Amino acid sequence: MSAPGLPLAGITVVDLGQVYQGPYATLLMAKAGAEIIKVEPLAGEPLRHRIAVGRGASFPFAMLNSNKRSVTLNLKSERGRLLLVEMAKRADVLLENFAPGVLDRLGVGWQALSAVNPRLIYASGSGFGLSGPDRDSLAMDLTVQAVSGVMSITGFPEGPPVKAGAAFVDFLSGIHLYAGVMTALVERVRTGKGRLVEVAMEETVYPTLASNLGFLYTSEGAVPPRTGNRHGGLAIAPYNVYPARDGHVAIICVVEGHWQNLLVAMGREDLKDDPRFANNARRVEHLAETDAIVQRWTETLGRDAIFAVTRRHRIPSAPVRDLREVMNDPHMHERGMLERIYHPELGDIVVPTSPLRFHGAGRVETTPSPRLGQHNDEVYGGWLGLSAEEIARLRQEGVI
Amino acid sequence: MSAPGLPLAGITVVDLGQVYQGPYATLLMAKAGAEIIKVEPLAGEPLRHRIAVGRGASFPFAMLNSNKRSVTLNLKSERGRLLLVEMAKRADVLLENFAPGVLDRLGVGWQALSAVNPRLIYASGSGFGLSGPDRDSLAMDLTVQAVSGVMSITGFPEGPPVKAGAAFVDFLSGIHLYAGVMTALVERVRTGKGRLVEVAMEETVYPTLASNLGFLYTSEGAVPPRTGNRHGGLAIAPYNVYPARDGHVAIICVVEGHWQNLLVAMGREDLKDDPRFANNARRVEHLAETDAIVQRWTETLGRDAIFAVTRRHRIPSAPVRDLREVMNDPHMHERGMLERIYHPELGDIVVPTSPLRFHGAGRVETTPSPRLGQHNDEVYGGWLGLSAEEIARLRQEGVI
Repeated sequence: MSAPGLPLAGITVVDLGQVYQGPYATLLMAKAGAEIIKVEPLAGEPLRHRIAVGRGASFPFAMLNSNKRSVTLNLKSERGRLLLVEMAKRADVLLENFAPGVLDRLGVGWQALSAVNPRLIYASGSGFGLSGPDRDSLAMDLTVQAVSGVMSITGFPEGPPVKAGAAFVDFLSGIHLYAGVMTALVERVRTGKGRLVEVAMEETVYPTLASNLGFLYTSEGAVPPRTGNRHGGLAIAPYNVYPARDGHVAIICVVEGHWQNLLVAMGREDLKDDPRFANNARRVEHLAETDAIVQRWTETLGRDAIFAVTRRHRIPSAPVRDLREVMNDPHMHERGMLERIYHPELGDIVVPTSPLRFHGAGRVETTPSPRLGQHNDEVYGGWLGLSAEEIARLRQEGVI
Repeated sequence: MSAPGLPLAGITVVDLGQVYQGPYATLLMAKAGAEIIKVEPLAGEPLRHRIAVGRGASFPFAMLNSNKRSVTLNLKSERGRLLLVEMAKRADVLLENFAPGVLDRLGVGWQALSAVNPRLIYASGSGFGLSGPDRDSLAMDLTVQAVSGVMSITGFPEGPPVKAGAAFVDFLSGIHLYAGVMTALVERVRTGKGRLVEVAMEETVYPTLASNLGFLYTSEGAVPPRTGNRHGGLAIAPYNVYPARDGHVAIICVVEGHWQNLLVAMGREDLKDDPRFANNARRVEHLAETDAIVQRWTETLGRDAIFAVTRRHRIPSAPVRDLREVMNDPHMHERGMLERIYHPELGDIVVPTSPLRFHGAGRVETTPSPRLGQHNDEVYGGWLGLSAEEIARLRQEGVI
């Protein structure tokens, strides 16, 4: 099934991923041309059930599982585990994001599988990693946002800590998992050997705190405050989200030219030589006054009008858009990042393709996320070579 | 300089990355064993100047530029561009995150460089990508958080839209850029040819909105609200951040067992059979009451005491930690994700290594982020083979 002219043509992935982290990694592999065999428990992976819609499908599941084949497999049965071993023998990659140790305890972890296929790359995604004192802490996007420091710097100084509304930790760690697998594939060409690749959600968050950790360093240990929509280190002005008549607009001045342009855009050239706003350092000293000047302008206009003016004057700016606008974004649709497809269970929906764009490569045509076990026959029959009778028996015995 | 026993041993990267997106991608390549030549303008890349500390170094710069060699290069001079071409001839990868078209206009974009080195992988990171109507919009983490929908779903329903405090868009797109390069390296083994690989910040955000886009789907078009620390689809309870006597704790009940355990932990077994809380659907119907019950318990205790109890009862939970705690986290230090190093300009600091962990591989010992142009002699002399006299002349003429 793998397409020619695609970067990952010929790579086969046994995908035990669930919810967001694992499935995002393998979605991008599928879109780059790999063959993905999604292995699910007989009841389906948890995301199928989370927000039950229609006949058991959920919208996030459909977003993340295009171009995969689904097989069911009961890993609690001996025969089921043997089937997994057979798949691992033939695969290039096995990916899972169970809690640490789950597959080891079943006897089908890294040790066992690399023994039967030394070329296998085994990718493990977890909250805190496979070692260390916090290894067994339960991890979800929300709890990792708490413990990794994200919440402490999100929101307003007078309010409580807040999570980022996007489940970015799941996806950030998911793409790290993808990245780790690719790195191991690069190495395998030279060595002929696979590796155990590990990604911990918490560890992928740490670098994203760079600006705020910088504040911690320069403040000699004072804990960085929540700064709302202002700069995390309170070191740039203007840098904020300003109210428009009908919404909000984000505006930043990164270099002095931006501020000068903004004064022109606002019709406030009278402030051109005002010493309070002479440069970024002075504007930071007069942060509230600087923001007030911008706001007095933005609140008289519509969001899109402000964006049009700032764009014309080359000032970094953007409208705060809601998700309906984002889902219908003409730019991402024109570029093929978003696609309108007909999904047999959900109807006409929008799904993402891949943010990884390989110029000149072939394009994988989207096939909708599979029904649970939709490809049992072709994978267990065609790939593993079981007879129709054997497959029927496996079904009867609750193995698949 | 590349170490043996490392996944990317032998890979050389010409790194024009700046600020967060590009430098994060190449930091992880360095930690996986690649040789990184960081090419900076004569004044240094923007991040060196952002929060000026000590002798021109900034803490975020030090976090993201360990294990790289720095050379200066004036791309506005003809001779400078020729030197870049010489480097590109010898390299495996060239990575940049300038605005779209900048290197093309200088005559050293993908077309020109792949003509002299067809094996070169050319990675371009930008805000909106190399095509489409929004291609030339100015992009920073803040503006992409606005336009991609993140702000519209972060914060409280009664408050304004809020950015995530972490600059996660920069890093999310940075690791996608890494992932794209590795994928092209995998392909090159088969084809012998490089590719132009492209990543747009905005496109990396879209998948992270999955839960909230799910709400949009099930609500038949009603725009997802900001839900504070509650579930993005208001479909799980308890799911929130609760006040403790001395801080906050995040708690979620993903399965019914978690709620039953929480009742025991709180000493509220009297609610075990209360129909208002009988299952998740009922608790969501009584969201405020459910949260109030949990809060009445958490606000009597310290943050760490609550976490200890929930951990013992296997309830997903985490303390909301501040950045000082995170930087000194024993778990990440024990695992080697965080390291204490002596930095010649900043003194004793904590730097990250890499969230990509390759079991059994060698480990790259951290060398601190380089001074600007620290490796001009060894790169232009040793690698490109220029004589000491030529290098002196390049310095004199302002080329390096």
